[in-house]
Amino acid sequence: MTGHPSTRLDDTVHQRVRLGILTILATAGRADFTYLRDNLEVTDGNLGRHLEVLYQAGYVEIEKTFEGRRPRTWVSITRAGRRALKEHILALRQMIDEVPGG
Amino acid sequence: MTGHPSTRLDDTVHQRVRLGILTILATAGRADFTYLRDNLEVTDGNLGRHLEVLYQAGYVEIEKTFEGRRPRTWVSITRAGRRALKEHILALRQMIDEVPGG
Repeated sequence: MTGHPSTRLDDTVHQRVRLGILTILATAGRADFTYLRDNLEVTDGNLGRHLEVLYQAGYVEIEKTFEGRRPRTWVSITRAGRRALKEHILALRQMIDEVPGG
Repeated sequence: MTGHPSTRLDDTVHQRVRLGILTILATAGRADFTYLRDNLEVTDGNLGRHLEVLYQAGYVEIEKTFEGRRPRTWVSITRAGRRALKEHILALRQMIDEVPGG
Protein backbone atom coordinates (compact mmCIF):
# COMPACT_ATOMS: atom_id res chain seq x y z
CA MET A 1 0.00 0.00 0.00
CA THR A 2 1.54 3.26 -1.15
CA GLY A 3 0.30 6.83 -1.45
CA HIS A 4 -1.71 8.87 0.97
CA PRO A 5 -4.44 6.92 2.82
CA SER A 6 -7.06 9.21 1.23
CA THR A 7 -6.36 7.43 -2.07
CA ARG A 8 -7.73 4.26 -0.48
CA LEU A 9 -11.02 5.83 0.53
CA ASP A 10 -13.90 4.35 -1.48
CA ASP A 11 -16.50 6.99 -2.37
CA THR A 12 -19.25 4.36 -2.16
CA VAL A 13 -18.48 3.99 1.54
CA HIS A 14 -17.11 7.45 2.29
CA GLN A 15 -20.14 9.54 1.36
CA ARG A 16 -21.50 11.00 4.60
CA VAL A 17 -24.95 9.36 4.70
CA ARG A 18 -23.67 6.00 3.43
CA LEU A 19 -20.90 5.95 6.04
CA GLY A 20 -23.62 6.60 8.61
CA ILE A 21 -25.76 3.75 7.28
CA LEU A 22 -22.87 1.29 7.29
CA THR A 23 -21.62 2.18 10.77
CA ILE A 24 -25.14 1.80 12.20
CA LEU A 25 -25.62 -1.55 10.45
CA ALA A 26 -22.17 -2.81 11.44
CA THR A 27 -23.05 -2.10 15.05
CA ALA A 28 -26.70 -3.19 15.08
CA GLY A 29 -26.52 -5.95 12.45
CA ARG A 30 -29.72 -4.70 10.86
CA ALA A 31 -32.02 -1.71 11.13
CA ASP A 32 -35.32 -0.72 9.64
CA PHE A 33 -35.78 2.04 7.09
CA THR A 34 -37.57 4.36 9.51
CA TYR A 35 -34.86 4.04 12.15
CA LEU A 36 -32.13 4.87 9.62
CA ARG A 37 -34.10 7.78 8.19
CA ASP A 38 -34.80 9.34 11.60
CA ASN A 39 -31.29 8.83 12.98
CA LEU A 40 -29.50 10.05 9.87
CA GLU A 41 -31.95 12.95 9.45
CA VAL A 42 -32.56 12.39 5.76
CA THR A 43 -35.69 12.20 3.64
CA ASP A 44 -37.20 8.90 2.46
CA GLY A 45 -36.05 9.63 -1.09
CA ASN A 46 -32.51 10.51 -0.05
CA LEU A 47 -32.14 7.40 2.11
CA GLY A 48 -33.62 5.25 -0.67
CA ARG A 49 -31.04 6.52 -3.16
CA HIS A 50 -28.11 5.88 -0.81
CA LEU A 51 -29.40 2.38 0.02
CA GLU A 52 -29.63 1.65 -3.69
CA VAL A 53 -25.95 2.61 -4.17
CA LEU A 54 -24.93 0.35 -1.27
CA TYR A 55 -27.14 -2.46 -2.57
CA GLN A 56 -25.64 -2.22 -6.06
CA ALA A 57 -22.17 -2.42 -4.50
CA GLY A 58 -23.22 -5.57 -2.63
CA TYR A 59 -22.77 -3.94 0.77
CA VAL A 60 -26.34 -4.19 2.08
CA GLU A 61 -29.36 -6.44 1.75
CA ILE A 62 -32.87 -5.08 1.79
CA GLU A 63 -35.89 -7.09 2.90
CA LYS A 64 -39.44 -5.81 2.62
CA THR A 65 -41.80 -7.41 5.10
CA PHE A 66 -45.26 -6.87 6.53
CA GLU A 67 -46.05 -6.70 10.21
CA GLY A 68 -49.78 -7.15 10.18
CA ARG A 69 -50.80 -4.76 7.40
CA ARG A 70 -47.88 -2.42 8.06
CA PRO A 71 -45.00 -2.63 5.58
CA ARG A 72 -41.55 -2.67 7.11
CA THR A 73 -38.20 -2.55 5.32
CA TRP A 74 -35.23 -4.16 6.99
CA VAL A 75 -31.69 -3.31 5.93
CA SER A 76 -28.72 -5.47 6.89
CA ILE A 77 -25.01 -5.32 6.13
CA THR A 78 -23.37 -8.04 4.05
CA ARG A 79 -20.00 -9.65 4.65
CA ALA A 80 -18.60 -7.57 1.75
CA GLY A 81 -20.06 -4.46 3.38
CA ARG A 82 -18.37 -5.21 6.68
CA ARG A 83 -15.06 -5.79 4.92
CA ALA A 84 -15.33 -2.55 2.90
CA LEU A 85 -16.21 -0.59 6.04
CA LYS A 86 -13.33 -2.13 7.98
CA GLU A 87 -10.79 -1.22 5.28
CA HIS A 88 -12.28 2.23 5.09
CA ILE A 89 -11.99 2.77 8.83
CA LEU A 90 -8.36 1.60 8.68
CA ALA A 91 -7.54 4.24 6.05
CA LEU A 92 -9.48 6.91 7.98
CA ARG A 93 -7.62 6.11 11.18
CA GLN A 94 -4.27 6.33 9.37
CA MET A 95 -5.23 9.80 8.16
CA ILE A 96 -6.66 11.25 11.33
CA ASP A 97 -4.15 9.73 13.72
CA GLU A 98 -1.45 11.87 12.07
CA VAL A 99 -3.26 15.11 12.80
CA PRO A 100 -1.89 16.93 15.88
CA GLY A 101 -4.65 17.22 18.47
CA GLY A 102 -7.01 15.22 16.22
CA MET B 1 -25.38 17.63 20.15
CA THR B 2 -28.08 15.17 19.13
CA GLY B 3 -28.55 12.77 16.26
CA HIS B 4 -26.10 10.42 14.65
CA PRO B 5 -22.54 11.79 14.35
CA SER B 6 -22.82 11.53 10.56
CA THR B 7 -25.22 14.47 10.69
CA ARG B 8 -22.31 16.58 11.97
CA LEU B 9 -20.02 15.72 9.05
CA ASP B 10 -19.41 18.77 6.87
CA ASP B 11 -19.28 17.85 3.17
CA THR B 12 -16.76 20.62 2.56
CA VAL B 13 -14.31 18.78 4.82
CA HIS B 14 -15.54 15.22 4.34
CA GLN B 15 -15.01 14.86 0.58
CA ARG B 16 -12.17 12.36 0.09
CA VAL B 17 -9.58 14.62 -1.60
CA ARG B 18 -10.36 17.62 0.61
CA LEU B 19 -10.04 15.52 3.77
CA GLY B 20 -6.66 14.41 2.41
CA ILE B 21 -5.58 18.01 1.77
CA LEU B 22 -6.63 19.18 5.23
CA THR B 23 -4.99 16.29 7.10
CA ILE B 24 -1.71 16.84 5.21
CA LEU B 25 -1.81 20.58 5.91
CA ALA B 26 -2.77 20.11 9.56
CA THR B 27 0.29 17.90 9.98
CA ALA B 28 2.78 19.79 7.81
CA GLY B 29 1.46 23.33 8.34
CA ARG B 30 1.83 24.04 4.63
CA ALA B 31 2.57 22.15 1.45
CA ASP B 32 3.15 23.08 -2.15
CA PHE B 33 0.73 22.32 -4.95
CA THR B 34 2.96 19.67 -6.55
CA TYR B 35 3.42 17.79 -3.28
CA LEU B 36 -0.33 17.68 -2.68
CA ARG B 37 -1.05 16.63 -6.27
CA ASP B 38 1.49 13.79 -6.23
CA ASN B 39 0.57 12.49 -2.77
CA LEU B 40 -3.17 12.62 -3.31
CA GLU B 41 -2.85 11.20 -6.84
CA VAL B 42 -5.10 13.76 -8.48
CA THR B 43 -4.79 15.90 -11.59
CA ASP B 44 -3.84 19.59 -11.47
CA GLY B 45 -7.40 20.52 -12.43
CA ASN B 46 -8.98 18.30 -9.80
CA LEU B 47 -6.70 19.56 -7.03
CA GLY B 48 -7.31 23.15 -8.14
CA ARG B 49 -11.07 22.73 -7.85
CA HIS B 50 -10.88 21.20 -4.37
CA LEU B 51 -8.51 23.92 -3.17
CA GLU B 52 -10.95 26.53 -4.45
CA VAL B 53 -13.77 24.96 -2.39
CA LEU B 54 -11.57 24.98 0.72
CA TYR B 55 -10.44 28.54 0.01
CA GLN B 56 -14.03 29.75 -0.40
CA ALA B 57 -14.87 28.13 2.96
CA GLY B 58 -11.95 29.99 4.56
CA TYR B 59 -10.12 26.75 5.41
CA VAL B 60 -6.93 27.28 3.38
CA GLU B 61 -4.76 30.12 2.16
CA ILE B 62 -3.02 29.99 -1.19
CA GLU B 63 0.19 31.89 -1.95
CA LYS B 64 1.74 32.00 -5.40
CA THR B 65 5.47 32.65 -5.33
CA PHE B 66 8.46 32.43 -7.64
CA GLU B 67 11.63 30.57 -6.84
CA GLY B 68 13.98 31.98 -9.44
CA ARG B 69 11.82 31.82 -12.55
CA ARG B 70 9.93 28.77 -11.32
CA PRO B 71 6.40 29.42 -10.04
CA ARG B 72 5.49 27.70 -6.83
CA THR B 73 2.12 27.61 -5.10
CA TRP B 74 2.04 27.18 -1.35
CA VAL B 75 -1.10 26.07 0.45
CA SER B 76 -1.55 26.47 4.19
CA ILE B 77 -4.36 25.71 6.60
CA THR B 78 -6.15 28.53 8.41
CA ARG B 79 -7.25 28.56 12.02
CA ALA B 80 -10.85 28.00 10.83
CA GLY B 81 -9.62 25.07 8.76
CA ARG B 82 -7.95 23.47 11.76
CA ARG B 83 -11.08 23.93 13.84
CA ALA B 84 -13.33 22.45 11.13
CA LEU B 85 -11.01 19.47 10.71
CA LYS B 86 -10.82 18.90 14.45
CA GLU B 87 -14.62 18.87 14.81
CA HIS B 88 -14.84 16.59 11.82
CA ILE B 89 -12.36 14.13 13.26
CA LEU B 90 -14.29 14.12 16.53
CA ALA B 91 -17.51 13.13 14.72
CA LEU B 92 -15.66 10.53 12.64
CA ARG B 93 -14.14 8.96 15.74
CA GLN B 94 -17.54 8.80 17.42
CA MET B 95 -18.85 6.92 14.40
CA ILE B 96 -16.03 4.48 13.84
CA ASP B 97 -15.31 3.77 17.49
CA GLU B 98 -18.76 2.15 17.74
CA VAL B 99 -18.03 -0.34 14.98
CA PRO B 100 -17.05 -3.79 16.29
CA GLY B 101 -13.53 -4.58 15.14
CA GLY B 102 -13.22 -1.14 13.52
